Amino acid sequence: MSGNTFGKNFSVTSWGESHGPAVGIVIDGCPSLINIDINAIQSELDRRAPGQSDLTTPRKEKDQVKILSGIYQGKTTGTPLTLIIENQNQKSSDYHHLNEIYRPGHADFVYDKKYGIRDPRGGGRSSARMTAGLVAAGAVAKVILKDKLEISILAYVNQVHQIKAQINPLQVTLQQIEATPVRCPDSQSAQKMIDYIKEVKNNGDSVGGIIECVVKNVPIGLGEPVFDKLSANLAKAMFSINAVKGFEIGNGFTAATLLGSENNDPFINDRNQIKAQSNRAGGILGGISNGMPIVFRTAFKPTPTIGKNQQTVNRQGKKVELEAKGRHDPCVLPRAVPVVEAMAAITICDAFLSQFKE
Amino acid sequence: MSGNTFGKNFSVTSWGESHGPAVGIVIDGCPSLINIDINAIQSELDRRAPGQSDLTTPRKEKDQVKILSGIYQGKTTGTPLTLIIENQNQKSSDYHHLNEIYRPGHADFVYDKKYGIRDPRGGGRSSARMTAGLVAAGAVAKVILKDKLEISILAYVNQVHQIKAQINPLQVTLQQIEATPVRCPDSQSAQKMIDYIKEVKNNGDSVGGIIECVVKNVPIGLGEPVFDKLSANLAKAMFSINAVKGFEIGNGFTAATLLGSENNDPFINDRNQIKAQSNRAGGILGGISNGMPIVFRTAFKPTPTIGKNQQTVNRQGKKVELEAKGRHDPCVLPRAVPVVEAMAAITICDAFLSQFKE
Amino acid sequence: MSGNTFGKNFSVTSWGESHGPAVGIVIDGCPSLINIDINAIQSELDRRAPGQSDLTTPRKEKDQVKILSGIYQGKTTGTPLTLIIENQNQKSSDYHHLNEIYRPGHADFVYDKKYGIRDPRGGGRSSARMTAGLVAAGAVAKVILKDKLEISILAYVNQVHQIKAQINPLQVTLQQIEATPVRCPDSQSAQKMIDYIKEVKNNGDSVGGIIECVVKNVPIGLGEPVFDKLSANLAKAMFSINAVKGFEIGNGFTAATLLGSENNDPFINDRNQIKAQSNRAGGILGGISNGMPIVFRTAFKPTPTIGKNQQTVNRQGKKVELEAKGRHDPCVLPRAVPVVEAMAAITICDAFLSQFKE
Amino acid sequence: MSGNTFGKNFSVTSWGESHGPAVGIVIDGCPSLINIDINAIQSELDRRAPGQSDLTTPRKEKDQVKILSGIYQGKTTGTPLTLIIENQNQKSSDYHHLNEIYRPGHADFVYDKKYGIRDPRGGGRSSARMTAGLVAAGAVAKVILKDKLEISILAYVNQVHQIKAQINPLQVTLQQIEATPVRCPDSQSAQKMIDYIKEVKNNGDSVGGIIECVVKNVPIGLGEPVFDKLSANLAKAMFSINAVKGFEIGNGFTAATLLGSENNDPFINDRNQIKAQSNRAGGILGGISNGMPIVFRTAFKPTPTIGKNQQTVNRQGKKVELEAKGRHDPCVLPRAVPVVEAMAAITICDAFLSQFKE
Repeated sequence: MSGNTFGKNFSVTSWGESHGPAVGIVIDGCPSLINIDINAIQSELDRRAPGQSDLTTPRKEKDQVKILSGIYQGKTTGTPLTLIIENQNQKSSDYHHLNEIYRPGHADFVYDKKYGIRDPRGGGRSSARMTAGLVAAGAVAKVILKDKLEISILAYVNQVHQIKAQINPLQVTLQQIEATPVRCPDSQSAQKMIDYIKEVKNNGDSVGGIIECVVKNVPIGLGEPVFDKLSANLAKAMFSINAVKGFEIGNGFTAATLLGSENNDPFINDRNQIKAQSNRAGGILGGISNGMPIVFRTAFKPTPTIGKNQQTVNRQGKKVELEAKGRHDPCVLPRAVPVVEAMAAITICDAFLSQFKE
Repeated sequence: MSGNTFGKNFSVTSWGESHGPAVGIVIDGCPSLINIDINAIQSELDRRAPGQSDLTTPRKEKDQVKILSGIYQGKTTGTPLTLIIENQNQKSSDYHHLNEIYRPGHADFVYDKKYGIRDPRGGGRSSARMTAGLVAAGAVAKVILKDKLEISILAYVNQVHQIKAQINPLQVTLQQIEATPVRCPDSQSAQKMIDYIKEVKNNGDSVGGIIECVVKNVPIGLGEPVFDKLSANLAKAMFSINAVKGFEIGNGFTAATLLGSENNDPFINDRNQIKAQSNRAGGILGGISNGMPIVFRTAFKPTPTIGKNQQTVNRQGKKVELEAKGRHDPCVLPRAVPVVEAMAAITICDAFLSQFKE
Repeated sequence: MSGNTFGKNFSVTSWGESHGPAVGIVIDGCPSLINIDINAIQSELDRRAPGQSDLTTPRKEKDQVKILSGIYQGKTTGTPLTLIIENQNQKSSDYHHLNEIYRPGHADFVYDKKYGIRDPRGGGRSSARMTAGLVAAGAVAKVILKDKLEISILAYVNQVHQIKAQINPLQVTLQQIEATPVRCPDSQSAQKMIDYIKEVKNNGDSVGGIIECVVKNVPIGLGEPVFDKLSANLAKAMFSINAVKGFEIGNGFTAATLLGSENNDPFINDRNQIKAQSNRAGGILGGISNGMPIVFRTAFKPTPTIGKNQQTVNRQGKKVELEAKGRHDPCVLPRAVPVVEAMAAITICDAFLSQFKE
Repeated sequence: MSGNTFGKNFSVTSWGESHGPAVGIVIDGCPSLINIDINAIQSELDRRAPGQSDLTTPRKEKDQVKILSGIYQGKTTGTPLTLIIENQNQKSSDYHHLNEIYRPGHADFVYDKKYGIRDPRGGGRSSARMTAGLVAAGAVAKVILKDKLEISILAYVNQVHQIKAQINPLQVTLQQIEATPVRCPDSQSAQKMIDYIKEVKNNGDSVGGIIECVVKNVPIGLGEPVFDKLSANLAKAMFSINAVKGFEIGNGFTAATLLGSENNDPFINDRNQIKAQSNRAGGILGGISNGMPIVFRTAFKPTPTIGKNQQTVNRQGKKVELEAKGRHDPCVLPRAVPVVEAMAAITICDAFLSQFKE
């Protein structure tokens, strides 16, 4: 296949372009008899939608999800589940000026070279709009994980530029995350982030950051040895999200600076349950979940679209100036939070359905 | 499948246990008519082998690779290539004391819970010995990439504990890397690393670090949109290596602290070739190679086996002390260097064969 | 995955139910820069549609295909191509009486047992309506094969009940096939088949038959050794079509009654081209295309829906009589002809794209 | 991948060439804690081995199976199971005369064209020797199916040339099958077949036939809608066996000559169990097992190697005579019986593990 399917057991095929008729996903492998509430999917999409606050791009598109297959009388039937989000804005004219120009930091150039053609409208297939489909698929995965295992998945912004939040992953709540438009549950840091993002926006620039994600109630034994390690699939899942440049789990890059005696998690017997005393591993040992909360972090680069003119070249290799047009998204992280959760949910659901079938 | 195959076009199936009869790999998708020199494979394995220096475990096993299929008169035939490395040490008795004990930081516990059984000898399938097969497969991928595209892949240690080397990825040579047993091409830092690792070893401890990898001459257009991004598959590939806890590409986690205007790579026309002026992206844009060198870093935790007694529990949940036995590997990074190169080679070869067939 | 994707390089994911909002397919792996004429897809669908003649079910649904992704300015972009056919008839009430009853020869019973739930409207996912998606995907495959290799694929009815047509596969034309509503290019046999099907219909019964398919201009070398033999994938493709119970290639079952000296095709040198003198193999040797026309036959059972009352049981195991309701399709073969062509096109396109990438 | 792996859940990777060092298979997805008796695997291999009777080729190779991974203390560990059979005869010289010649009915020509190289020794990868690996993998699948579901799989020869046996599939026993060297449980027909095969052999010719297979105790619900139908995967599995040219299930090609009222299997309530009254469907409805015995037939062409000189061409296209050398196998069917069983077992085990885990 050509890379548009993720997962072997809960397998998500993504399709669509930013300004084509629709974006959508097909889920193959969804168990039958799961109650699907379309409102639950819609509210995840609403968290990803633009225009939620003055921190994000104001483009006003309504991402309305529809179910095209796989459901009968509100329940999954075990057959492929197709979710579709129609694009409101399909006007080609808006993007006419980008037909021939290679935007710095964007995929225009590589698509042209790879395919000999690209859909220039809003980045086509390389647009972050593709994450709408991922969020919809992730919403289904979340329902399954909640339903079968009481698994909860929460992501939040824990760094923007140099502003690092102080957060205990085990105590974060959805309410805290949703309390501020920046989706950082440390309210003090959140305010600093908001102020900084606004400043960056006013300067016509954008800024990167880090999203942390914590997954609780994961059963022991998810993930496979060697290649389909749960950590490896989470890494791949996160790198499927636009603008991701780094991933670490548990102690992550910090583990590189530690001694074995500092980094090992001793096993203990806690009321007749064997568990790790600490969680430096981040919930995964040898690629397999060990029953502790899974904690990982994903680094996002600043969005390449900025409000400043930039030097670049066009398709013919001629030097041109890319004019800043319209308003830009100064920080994608708040809107990326539900995408991180979605890809984590898809990955864990896939591992779960590989291990346990009913 | 159950996670023991990596890649869709150059697909590597790994099998074996640390102390079973053999470890091996099957490569399906190797193009025909490639000249395979078994000595080239053997010398990559020799770089991974234990006992190369006093920095590593002295266990003296000879990793002799044999080809069991896919070759006729020195050339690949296009049919599956099977490489096998027989295990010298299959004595079960050596590991008898580990049958029932859960070593901290190791996969014993999760294997037992996942499968209800595990091969306790040397960690069985979770052993770093599995990387011998990966190195063998990677050696074949390297030959193909060299043969067809003049691609070169070099990895090296650029951090051990807090000792960070000063290295220009574009100027590193294999000779510089192999010049010291720690495989760090910055000779001053190398010496500090060696001294520190010996100190750690004497203290009965182990230490983590970071390996950087640079891949040159990658053609534009490798990798797929959305899910099979080249960056995503590299991330997954690296997390397939034992002890890896983090991965970043280009500016990586640093990109999280930058502005868009600082992180974008402007396009220029360099003697009628469109290219990026800088390489903050690390050679990959929108998941697809852009023709610049691919540069990424992988964080390794310190090996969990240390020369100190540790508290843990056994299979029955009884508190026990894990005695330090034999000699341990104070720092896996020097031996992991060829493994990082191998997994990079496999990943890029897979993407290449997906894009270009003959 | 759960069985709703066919092909590894030209990979077709099917989704939808008979009376859900829509049926559709996603093609991943379609090369870029292919001109797609939606009318070409539509006319293949029109060949499959019901109500073409009085030989088929008169249900009047208009199968209008729409493209939702993967095309820009009439050309494929190399990204997933999504084709959708909205269902006109979504009224659940029509099928209310089938909610609880297990129709003989249908999949109602096995779906209920497998999933614990099923969409009873028109058979849901087990409906022959799924072949509409296959025909749409096959139309795209045909365009690629025509465009790149001048491959032509023709199927036709060559047996209905005991009426066997006399046909030279190498001389059949599309015009001959489309000349009669039964799609049998032997006009004498065609008339007998038409008469017989009408008689069967009047008797409230249905009848089976055989479709033959011939593929010309297939390059030498498509198909893989051992498991992904071209013949094996064609067999699987044909068994993906509703009502198929048998498949044979070249001499097929007749080869079982022959001697080696009678069945071998000698090689000859025909104007400096090595080829087989005869084509008893049906164009495939050792699973790999040998450059001769591929000729195979597919056996269809009579449709299980008939115009007579039948004894059966309901979900509770109670004996009930299934009443014949509405009009039935006395012979699916004429409408199955484009489906056989479509699945052959998909299979060969998949093998072609595995072998040759541009 | 390149076609050397079969199955998604019980996935079998085949490798090796006829006269290379070894042939083997890797099974990924084998459940843990299965007791594997290597003698059970060996005796299946012995049924496939040449030299069992004067009906087959006398080549005296001993196919001794070894387990290289995936077993600890006689039990599967859930990690890849590798089985290997070393080739005794690796002398290249024996096949020197075939280096340049294209044998009629063999894959020499297509391999040369596909790969630009081939291993000419005994047909290399296209040799029926590959089925030794399949039989070994099938033996493991049989153990799992027996262990978990009491499934039994029996195949037997039911036609050689025009000699058709009279057999009730539901009453055949392994003893009856193994009673004669031709593996036909109808002893009268068996004798005719034996006499005829000897006659054919003396004439320097070979002969084809049909193998029937019956699988009992298959649970309801194996197989997927649309593409991974159990029937479709069985068809593909059978076409993976050398010399197969046809496949049919239940009424098969005969269904093409029947009316719906004759071919439908009515459902009945048999002691509170819903089942089909007859088994014209052959145990599969809509691609999914319905709990009735699965019954299918596979047509084999006569082996192309015969004891007569044949006209053909060499690699340069020059007309040459292929000399009959050594002794040939006049009828592969008796030795193909365990191969049919093996591929049926692999297919059903794969479907079973997709549906039911742990």
